[in-house]
Amino acid sequence: MSNAPVSFAARLATKINTTGTVLCVGIDPHPHLMHSLFGGTDAIPGSPEALTHLEAFCSELIDAASGKVPAVKPQAALFEQHGPGGMRVLADIARKAREASLLVIMDAKRGDIGSTAEAYASAWLGPDALFPSDALTVNPYLGLDSLMPFITQASAVGAGLFILARTSNAGSRDLQQLDAGGTPIWAHLARLIAPVVTDNLDAIAGFSSIGIVAGATGPDEAHALRTELPTAPFLIPGYGAQGASATDALAGLIRDNQNKLTGGLVNASRGISHCAAAQTAADISSWRRAVNDALSHATDALAS
Amino acid sequence: MSNAPVSFAARLATKINTTGTVLCVGIDPHPHLMHSLFGGTDAIPGSPEALTHLEAFCSELIDAASGKVPAVKPQAALFEQHGPGGMRVLADIARKAREASLLVIMDAKRGDIGSTAEAYASAWLGPDALFPSDALTVNPYLGLDSLMPFITQASAVGAGLFILARTSNAGSRDLQQLDAGGTPIWAHLARLIAPVVTDNLDAIAGFSSIGIVAGATGPDEAHALRTELPTAPFLIPGYGAQGASATDALAGLIRDNQNKLTGGLVNASRGISHCAAAQTAADISSWRRAVNDALSHATDALAS
Repeated sequence: MSNAPVSFAARLATKINTTGTVLCVGIDPHPHLMHSLFGGTDAIPGSPEALTHLEAFCSELIDAASGKVPAVKPQAALFEQHGPGGMRVLADIARKAREASLLVIMDAKRGDIGSTAEAYASAWLGPDALFPSDALTVNPYLGLDSLMPFITQASAVGAGLFILARTSNAGSRDLQQLDAGGTPIWAHLARLIAPVVTDNLDAIAGFSSIGIVAGATGPDEAHALRTELPTAPFLIPGYGAQGASATDALAGLIRDNQNKLTGGLVNASRGISHCAAAQTAADISSWRRAVNDALSHATDALAS
Repeated sequence: MSNAPVSFAARLATKINTTGTVLCVGIDPHPHLMHSLFGGTDAIPGSPEALTHLEAFCSELIDAASGKVPAVKPQAALFEQHGPGGMRVLADIARKAREASLLVIMDAKRGDIGSTAEAYASAWLGPDALFPSDALTVNPYLGLDSLMPFITQASAVGAGLFILARTSNAGSRDLQQLDAGGTPIWAHLARLIAPVVTDNLDAIAGFSSIGIVAGATGPDEAHALRTELPTAPFLIPGYGAQGASATDALAGLIRDNQNKLTGGLVNASRGISHCAAAQTAADISSWRRAVNDALSHATDALAS
C-alpha cells in the first residue's frame, strides 16, 4: 500500500462525477453587500459582531452547497479585511467545508519567491495546513521558480493549484494580453507551466492537479489555453455577476467519454449568495430558499 | 487647516533624512533559521510556544532598528504560516514598529480585482487598518484596474504602495523580462503606472507615494525604471543574502540637492537578522550585539 495522498485531480474528478456539475460556489462576504440577517452593511470590520455574522453567512453557504456542488471558493481578502479574527473564521469555515464534503478552493492569489513561497504553501495547502485548502490560487508574475515551492508542496500533500493565467477583468489586457514575439503573455505562461502540469497528471482522473485561472470573459483565450494545457483543470471566474454567459464560461472545459463536462470548475459568487431574491429576503427561510434556487439555476445553466 | 493625512512620501523622506540611511530591515522569521533563543527550528507552526518566540524575535528586531533606519519590512508569509495566531502577531508587531517610529513596509504581495482589491487595501493600508501598514507591496499581473483600489485607498489614508516591477529572483526573466514590441514587460508596467505615480507626487517630499519593487540583482533595469518613473520610491530587495552588491542595490536610487541618497529603500533581511554571528550567538546579549553590528555594517556599506 502506498502512503501517497489522493491527488487533488482525483478528488475533483470524483466530486464532479458525484454531484454532476462543475459549479463552484464562491464564498464572498462583501461587507457592503451583507444582508441584515448577517449584520447588514455597517458592521465594524473585525468586531466580535462582524465575525459572528461572517461565520454565520459562510456556514449558510456551506450548508447550501454541501452535496450539490464539488467545491466552494472562499475569497481570502474578505476575511483578511476583518484582521486576525477574520483569518480565524476563514480557517474555521475551511474546516467546516471540508467536513461537509466540499473541496476548498482558496482564492488567496499568493505569490513570492524561495522560502517565502514555501511559507505560503505550507500555510494553505493540504489538510494539515493552518488554513486547510484543497487548492490555492497563485500569481505567476514572479516566474516559474516562484511557483515551484507551491507545486512541490501541493504534490507532497495531494493539493492543487490554480495559477492565474488570464483573469476576467478588463485590466487583463494591460500585461497578460501583451504580445511578446507573436504570443500573448498568458500563452507564454501556459508554455512555461506545461511541463509541471504534465508532471502532476493523475492518469486515472484524466487531468492534473496543477491548473490555471482562465476568466469566463475570454472564451477564445480559454480555447487556446485548453490547446496548450490539455490536462490542466481550469478555474473559471467571471460567470454571472461579471457578465460572462454559461457558454463562454464553459469554453475551457472538456467532455469525458460519456459526454459529461469535466476538467475544471466554473465559479459563481454574488449570483448565488447575493442574488436579488436573497438580498430582499424577509427572513432566513426565504434567504435559504433564494440561495438554493439560485444554486439550482446556475447548475442547470451550466448543464448542457 | 487641512485634514489630509501626511503622505507616505513625506514620512519616508523625513525618516531617510533623520536616520541618514536608506536601509530597511526585513523582518523574516524563517522557521528553519530560528535561533534556539527564539525556540529553534522544531517549533510547531501556530503553537503558543512558536507564537511567543515569533513575537520575541520580531520585537528584538524592532528594538534594534528603531531610530537607526527609516523602516522595517515584515514578510507576511512567515506569519501566515503560523495561521490566525501568526496573523495576530503580525498585526501586533506592525503596531509596535509604528510606535517605535519605524515605517512598516508590509511585504504581502497582494493583488485582486474590484471590491476584492478594496478589501485587501482596507486590511493593510493606513494606521486604522487591522494590519496597520505605512506601505504595502502589490502584484500587478491583473492590470491597472486591479491596482486602482489600492491606489485610491493609499491616497485616502496617506499610505504608500510598492508595485512589483522587476523582482530579484532568476525567474523574473520568465514573464517580467519578456519583450513585447521592443519593450520588456516591466517597462510596459512602468509606463502603465507612470500617470498614477505622478498623480501621487508629494512636491515637498520630492517623490510619490506610489513606488515599485526593483530587485537589486538588476541594476541596469533599475536605471531604466528610474528614467521611466523619476519620482517613484523604489523598494529594493536582493541586497546581501540574495547576492547583489551595495552598488547594484543603489542603482535605482537618487541623490538630493545635498548629494544624499533618497528615493527609496534597500532591504536587508537575513544578512542582518540571521547573520553568521547572530546565528552562532551563545546568548541574547551576543545576539543583540551581532544584529546591531550587522545593521551598522549594512548602513555603512550603503553610505557613499
